Amino acid sequence: MFHFKLAGRAADLRTTLPIHRDDIISFGAGDAFPGLLPDLTEEAHAALSTFRSEALQYGGRAGLADLREWVAHRLSSPGAPLSSENILIVNGAKHALDLICSLLTEPGDSIVVGAPTYHTGIPIFRHRGLSFVEVGHDLEGLKIEELRTELSSRRRRNAPLPRFIYEIPDFQNPSGVTMSADRRRSLIELALEYGIPVVEDSPYREVRFAGEAVPPLKTFDSQGCVFHVGTFAKLLAPGLRVGWIATTSENVARLGLLKADGGSSPLTQRIIYQVCASGKLDAHIARVTETYRSHMETMVEALTQHAPTLSFRRPEGGYYLWARLPSGVDADAVATAALAQGVEIIPGTRFHAGTGAQHPSNRRPGSDHIRLGYSFPAPHEIREGVVRLADALSGLATDGGRRHDK
Amino acid sequence: MFHFKLAGRAADLRTTLPIHRDDIISFGAGDAFPGLLPDLTEEAHAALSTFRSEALQYGGRAGLADLREWVAHRLSSPGAPLSSENILIVNGAKHALDLICSLLTEPGDSIVVGAPTYHTGIPIFRHRGLSFVEVGHDLEGLKIEELRTELSSRRRRNAPLPRFIYEIPDFQNPSGVTMSADRRRSLIELALEYGIPVVEDSPYREVRFAGEAVPPLKTFDSQGCVFHVGTFAKLLAPGLRVGWIATTSENVARLGLLKADGGSSPLTQRIIYQVCASGKLDAHIARVTETYRSHMETMVEALTQHAPTLSFRRPEGGYYLWARLPSGVDADAVATAALAQGVEIIPGTRFHAGTGAQHPSNRRPGSDHIRLGYSFPAPHEIREGVVRLADALSGLATDGGRRHDK
Repeated sequence: MFHFKLAGRAADLRTTLPIHRDDIISFGAGDAFPGLLPDLTEEAHAALSTFRSEALQYGGRAGLADLREWVAHRLSSPGAPLSSENILIVNGAKHALDLICSLLTEPGDSIVVGAPTYHTGIPIFRHRGLSFVEVGHDLEGLKIEELRTELSSRRRRNAPLPRFIYEIPDFQNPSGVTMSADRRRSLIELALEYGIPVVEDSPYREVRFAGEAVPPLKTFDSQGCVFHVGTFAKLLAPGLRVGWIATTSENVARLGLLKADGGSSPLTQRIIYQVCASGKLDAHIARVTETYRSHMETMVEALTQHAPTLSFRRPEGGYYLWARLPSGVDADAVATAALAQGVEIIPGTRFHAGTGAQHPSNRRPGSDHIRLGYSFPAPHEIREGVVRLADALSGLATDGGRRHDK
Repeated sequence: MFHFKLAGRAADLRTTLPIHRDDIISFGAGDAFPGLLPDLTEEAHAALSTFRSEALQYGGRAGLADLREWVAHRLSSPGAPLSSENILIVNGAKHALDLICSLLTEPGDSIVVGAPTYHTGIPIFRHRGLSFVEVGHDLEGLKIEELRTELSSRRRRNAPLPRFIYEIPDFQNPSGVTMSADRRRSLIELALEYGIPVVEDSPYREVRFAGEAVPPLKTFDSQGCVFHVGTFAKLLAPGLRVGWIATTSENVARLGLLKADGGSSPLTQRIIYQVCASGKLDAHIARVTETYRSHMETMVEALTQHAPTLSFRRPEGGYYLWARLPSGVDADAVATAALAQGVEIIPGTRFHAGTGAQHPSNRRPGSDHIRLGYSFPAPHEIREGVVRLADALSGLATDGGRRHDK
């Protein structure tokens, strides 16, 4: 067969794809609970009849004017007003991250990410040839002083600065932490001081079970340094593949030119806009939030009952519970043992970009945590999955918490 | 405002976007004739009810199994059999080109393109940091001997070889030429000899008005050196944004990982598959072909009557007529004058990648041709547009065919 000469970074492609097997309970995926997938038949009918010549033709690169307007209105704030010119429609939030990389970075550049950070973002950044400056998290979010120290040290050494700061300020994936307003203000100040754009990835913001919402980073941004990334995947349905970037109008134009698809599907955009315009979206988000709150509560109760060696904070929103393992138990070993018991979880090690990490011990970063997603499984599956996970944990405890595969 | 440090190539983004104004007749776009946009309400209803949990959930990165199977079956040939494992679903053909660049190229590499070539491909390749090895066309398609000479000279000089050969073998955009079977065989032989993959971009293949179809390059490829790119944009509707890449299963897996969207929309894929499975697609393609044949004939008649100074070959398929201007008349000047008269055309200069071109005179490559698209306008608009174009041409002829803006 033909031997392909691949691009350097493409030759080393690998990622762990989600497992889809009927006998496996998935705490891995961020998929929607199937019972929450909305009935969009009416909106699709309107899109394909009344709006046919728009929905089935090539659309503009920036997206449907109506939808851009709607997103701008929803996200706008007095301190950081937005109009439709500030919104670029994209094929989901991951596509947004890739486009922003193409606008702001060259292979060999570095970016700032949290430790831990969104595991699916890591290969997107890596395929762009980027390296990582990892900054720790605490209960208020990204440690701004740690980042300040790093940036000032780089400036002193005349070392290249990171090209952007990637952060998930609301219900951070995987830790669940929401960044405080003070931290948000400090982050923007620091970004402006060093001239480094901030990429605010905000898929879970509206799925809040408790506590007070903190305004988006974008609303603290009077200078246009924040790229706010949002998505309808978590608000309405993942399969629509529609998200957005809010940034300056100049960057919307540039990103539009970099959008090699030539424009996202006007059909899916029109379906979404019909939902938004009818007022159905807010009712749907309320249903989503109530459902996931109940999933979360089921998981918390089951963990408390069956897996008391795990410690965690009760999630105030989002899709995931971030659990600390008992001392000496390794996350990768738990993931393997859990899968053998019929439940998929993601080990904390997957959420570390893996370069530049300063870790106090010799343990691999993240090996003391696992991420448990409660969005996709039904409550009875959550209970059963936790029982299986507890079985896996006790098996590991018996043999000293070591990896089975050593 | 915040000053953005952009990636080197991103700082120089520019392209000419299509003009959408009601008073302008567009011979520029490759949009579908609005009267041909199909009624997909029934298929969308099925996708959003019977298949809801598939259509609205995250899909697999490679695409819907049913649709991949259907594409593989349609494209498979005895010499180059394909299965669903060989098909990656993408967000349209342009997205395919960008993904292939990310798999095969690094900034600084070169690729082979025709002179002329697809004008929207050029910025996609350029944004990837690629340079161009331009190879001429004649009535049989890409000049293989010219390419052989270039490759052998590079090998002799130990110069880097191009990373792939990009070609549109059926109704080439813009020239309309279909590559002969002999040329196709020679191209594959040459590609194998030098170990250079071929990217076969084939959006217009099934829109044939006359003559015999030549088998796709992919069917001459027993070694897996051809990436065949196809799209439902020209077969069904552009707004669905669904296309495919046919390649080895290994490359499908790699390209899937590079697909930063995380998987194309299962909703639009399911709608398309319902059309394919019902047998409606072939009936629709027949209607598309008949309609564009009649558009083409209207344009040919109108040009013969009103613009006899243009010379052209009658298109045997596809969306475009490639017309040679009278000697001394400049394509860019014609485009400007035509727009002033209310008709949009694309000057031939836009179809030249612009580096490495060997041109016999000092004229800019492509300045002796214009591309006239007949897909989007209705027949009465085609006639009126040709009258406007003829007016623009006579205006230029009177003042010697020089640019107005000098």
